[in-house]
Amino acid sequence: MEKRIALTGIKPTGTPHIGNYFGAIKPALELARDYETRFFIADYHALNSERDPQRLKEQTHQVAATWLACGLDPEKSLVYKQSAVPETFELTTILMAFTPKGLMNRAHAYKAVSEENRSAGKDPDNGINMGLYTYPVLMAADILLFNSNVVPVGRDQKQHIEMTADIAQAINRNYREELLTVPEPLINELTQIIPGMDGRKMSKSYNNTIPLFLPSKQLRKLIMKIVTNSQGIEEPKNPENCNVFNLYRLFATEQEQDALRQRYLAGGMGWGEAKQALYECMEREIAPYRERYEEYINNTDQIDAILARGAEKAREIAAGTISRLRRAIGIA
Amino acid sequence: MEKRIALTGIKPTGTPHIGNYFGAIKPALELARDYETRFFIADYHALNSERDPQRLKEQTHQVAATWLACGLDPEKSLVYKQSAVPETFELTTILMAFTPKGLMNRAHAYKAVSEENRSAGKDPDNGINMGLYTYPVLMAADILLFNSNVVPVGRDQKQHIEMTADIAQAINRNYREELLTVPEPLINELTQIIPGMDGRKMSKSYNNTIPLFLPSKQLRKLIMKIVTNSQGIEEPKNPENCNVFNLYRLFATEQEQDALRQRYLAGGMGWGEAKQALYECMEREIAPYRERYEEYINNTDQIDAILARGAEKAREIAAGTISRLRRAIGIA
Repeated sequence: MEKRIALTGIKPTGTPHIGNYFGAIKPALELARDYETRFFIADYHALNSERDPQRLKEQTHQVAATWLACGLDPEKSLVYKQSAVPETFELTTILMAFTPKGLMNRAHAYKAVSEENRSAGKDPDNGINMGLYTYPVLMAADILLFNSNVVPVGRDQKQHIEMTADIAQAINRNYREELLTVPEPLINELTQIIPGMDGRKMSKSYNNTIPLFLPSKQLRKLIMKIVTNSQGIEEPKNPENCNVFNLYRLFATEQEQDALRQRYLAGGMGWGEAKQALYECMEREIAPYRERYEEYINNTDQIDAILARGAEKAREIAAGTISRLRRAIGIA
Repeated sequence: MEKRIALTGIKPTGTPHIGNYFGAIKPALELARDYETRFFIADYHALNSERDPQRLKEQTHQVAATWLACGLDPEKSLVYKQSAVPETFELTTILMAFTPKGLMNRAHAYKAVSEENRSAGKDPDNGINMGLYTYPVLMAADILLFNSNVVPVGRDQKQHIEMTADIAQAINRNYREELLTVPEPLINELTQIIPGMDGRKMSKSYNNTIPLFLPSKQLRKLIMKIVTNSQGIEEPKNPENCNVFNLYRLFATEQEQDALRQRYLAGGMGWGEAKQALYECMEREIAPYRERYEEYINNTDQIDAILARGAEKAREIAAGTISRLRRAIGIA
């Protein structure tokens, strides 16, 4: 039986942290077991906020290097830049004609900003550009162009997939033909929140992240700064509500977890020792990724070559979708 | 000295009438004397309202046949379909990132519909699709892609050219480079309104049009139905406020106009006679166009070949604009 198609969009937002790795990268790469996976770097989405050409270019390379280093296999998965598939933008134009403006008004991201403006006594559209406002249509084009069956997303992105399905259905209905595959969201039900340095959810906006590819020494130094309580060495410690232990779980084997848990409960172990154990475990998993990342980022020609090969295959699929649509809508 | 570039967009809205001919087609074709003229058929704009593929295809052929028949010379002017230049849609995506949403909210066409909704007690965005709402951005891409200096438009479209200039300037400013040619509107100051069958401005919405390519017999029959007053044959008549005479002016030489004016003033001429004079003059000018129109419309392969040759040249220009922009914005 043919595998279903899963499409993952990657925003080029620079170097990732541990939270991105466990929350997005790892689960997306694991989909390759059950799905035909397609990955794209959403560089034109990034243009809405990144007006510095040099930074946009660097971030695109960084994000590509990250995913390749973490195990994205370009022989098995399709990987390409959005900008390398210009059919995306023609499909966007087609979708616009079938997207009610009311649908866009209800998009969470737009509503959040416009409500913020309103409560600040400003024009609701203050500072909002059309790229942000029409983002869900471009995203729908990304998805529909590649006949995607599922799109792995967090809860906050579920609405975008539902909008995509709405637009696809409107077109299929109008032309009485299954022109577009109607996609479903594949909600990533994270069983645990990845804690940051201070115990809150790891997030750039909390400034509590552990970057994924920090050099070994700096990584150790940062781990040593993870917030703990002020218990002394001799005191027995509770692993359950400890930031260090919660991070340790992500990297250690069951056996290692049990061993460290015992040491917490027994007392006689200082925080420095627990942090050292976390560092060693983390380093064991991350070091090979970091090494590969460095190789890629110091050889962007190799990245470009991989993305160019992907783009070639991607454009074949895209051309099929566009010519099917052109015929149907009466644009020969 | 190099000629400046004038770009004219043509909506594929079926067969034109006398009003379109004098108000839009003739003045646009006359620009070829002073400008390097570029014409495109805006088929993707039409998709916003035309959901029937067969009709969209026919209307595209009809409008191309019309302009070619009326004298658009594809050897001297560039002529192409918007859909044949997919760079248009990538440029649209770029422009979106630099278009404030507030600018779109102020677009006349959108405001008119949303205010109509509001006064009918409906949601302001009722029945409005994103194609209509984002129309000014797509139109800006049409213009900017081809380095247009001037865009001939009616007063009602002036705002769109100003918006295009605003967006182009925002991009040039951000990247500190003259990436896009800032266009100017070329307002078509019609000295006279083309009267319809009932004397009001000729317009499809008044249902008072004289189709441009009506077969000779039907044209004569229609002209005989032009509304006049009920003066008898013997009475002297006033040419100045006569629908028949006002149409006659458009087709007759100065000498012919003087002669008919005398007959009006002298009395002894019935309306049938004046209408016959109008018909003969009109037929003299239109017959050759009608013949060429029939040739083209019965040979759509020839139209397609002309448009394909135009598209090839158009894509060269478009590719230049897009690669210049890609380099500047950091999308290689």
